[in-house]
Amino acid sequence: MFNQLGVIGCGLMGGSFALALKRAGLVKRVIGYSKSPSTTDKAKRLGVIDIAAESALLAVSGSDIVLMAVPVAASEATFKAIRHLVEPGVLFMDVGSTKRDVVDAARRVLKDRVASFVPAHPIAGKEVSGVDHADALLYSGRQVILTPLKQTDATLVQKATDVWSAIGAQVLKMTPENHDAAFAAVSHLPHLLAFAYFSAVHKQPAGADFLSLAGPGFRDFTRIAASDPAVWRDILLANREEVMKQSLRFRHTLDALEHVMKTGNAEALEDLIRSASEARASWQMSTPKPTGSR
Amino acid sequence: MFNQLGVIGCGLMGGSFALALKRAGLVKRVIGYSKSPSTTDKAKRLGVIDIAAESALLAVSGSDIVLMAVPVAASEATFKAIRHLVEPGVLFMDVGSTKRDVVDAARRVLKDRVASFVPAHPIAGKEVSGVDHADALLYSGRQVILTPLKQTDATLVQKATDVWSAIGAQVLKMTPENHDAAFAAVSHLPHLLAFAYFSAVHKQPAGADFLSLAGPGFRDFTRIAASDPAVWRDILLANREEVMKQSLRFRHTLDALEHVMKTGNAEALEDLIRSASEARASWQMSTPKPTGSR
Repeated sequence: MFNQLGVIGCGLMGGSFALALKRAGLVKRVIGYSKSPSTTDKAKRLGVIDIAAESALLAVSGSDIVLMAVPVAASEATFKAIRHLVEPGVLFMDVGSTKRDVVDAARRVLKDRVASFVPAHPIAGKEVSGVDHADALLYSGRQVILTPLKQTDATLVQKATDVWSAIGAQVLKMTPENHDAAFAAVSHLPHLLAFAYFSAVHKQPAGADFLSLAGPGFRDFTRIAASDPAVWRDILLANREEVMKQSLRFRHTLDALEHVMKTGNAEALEDLIRSASEARASWQMSTPKPTGSR
Repeated sequence: MFNQLGVIGCGLMGGSFALALKRAGLVKRVIGYSKSPSTTDKAKRLGVIDIAAESALLAVSGSDIVLMAVPVAASEATFKAIRHLVEPGVLFMDVGSTKRDVVDAARRVLKDRVASFVPAHPIAGKEVSGVDHADALLYSGRQVILTPLKQTDATLVQKATDVWSAIGAQVLKMTPENHDAAFAAVSHLPHLLAFAYFSAVHKQPAGADFLSLAGPGFRDFTRIAASDPAVWRDILLANREEVMKQSLRFRHTLDALEHVMKTGNAEALEDLIRSASEARASWQMSTPKPTGSR
């Protein structure tokens, strides 16, 4: 399907995409660039990439599909580094967890060449980062959101849909604005709350003793608190307005729960808990059928 | 080891204890009582109990070990129902997630017979409740906190330690006060936050659309939001003072994170996230060795 995949940022997300395309036989070779040469070396040693590029631009050169998998705040610099080789017909995608800021940077830097850029956000990840954890199945059974612009080349949107589908993901399309509002609610705020909660426990005088007693509920609730700091710094800053709106909704609900606790209103407390509990029990994560059965 | 286990409350916790003791060959027969006769019937049908008792008192009669597995607010009524058969040498335990309130109720109702009561809190559970989910391995590899009083019979504390150890749990002892402070931090507050967060997302106008986009991070973060409403109503009310203290610490940390987001201080934001992320990555749940290798 593709001759050469260029990966800019050979970490968990970029590395997993390269492995998935290789596994599906969708690409002849993979050329990769990372800011740190030791990462690129490791990616080559692990067979994630075939060729190490010395710059982002060289990773684009000769590629017919390019994935930028860098922290979202590095998007603008990446677009600047590669813009001279952004040619029509080549599929450029990112994997950023925020889309308005990335789309704005693409518009500013790429101008009319923005038609080649199909903004993408695969809803996948791990609480560990780095190419060592790259996994050919990371995107299998996951959703991928594409947020194409009016100017985006429709043929490339179709190509993007095909390539994500071929590695087992389910593709949805929405506007960058709707994307950022939705993910502030279901992803960015929970990360912020998990960071805040874990810190609050950890930093108190008896924190270490308390942590030694924590069980499986705590383990799952705080799993995302181990997420990559640079990645989440950028996401929380890029989408802070929507995150703050969601945080305010959360604080109001927490206030309501604490109010009925303080007044000892057992019935009202049970009602509030029950509405959350029943809704959560009936919620299921959307997952497409496994690749094999498509 | 025991002739007859009496279980008061044949739900997830009580049922799992019965199954675990049977599996380990620690008990000849199990007699069970539940408020709802259909629960007791189901427990018998599932082989969790051998005999259905028509009252809590009848479940105690002839038993040399008794487990009370009722919501913590029902502890006092349960003690009242059984107090005439609380005899020296019989091991009485509960499984409540709060200990000060249960211990206070035991003192009030049982008076000098409180010596037979060994307050216990196994750090185990599922986000589903009911005897259908009872599991002989629920307590295996988990911690169990005992909070004996000065008056508690030392022989019974040892028996309690032995029985929990024999079904694969690790036993720790602490005061009821230290227990409640610790579990407000590592269990009760996370449940409150998960209920509040899930409600806030679920109840907003676009909630259903947002929930359809949520991924594995959300799934794990909100798992405990599906917990049993009656159980958690009681826990949050019984331990509200400690939970409020922990909530205040959490709010201060959340305020600090949001402050650096608002001011756009990327470096400070990354530092705060990094300290949580690194501490969470190095945290591991305490688990004893599996039963087989003891």
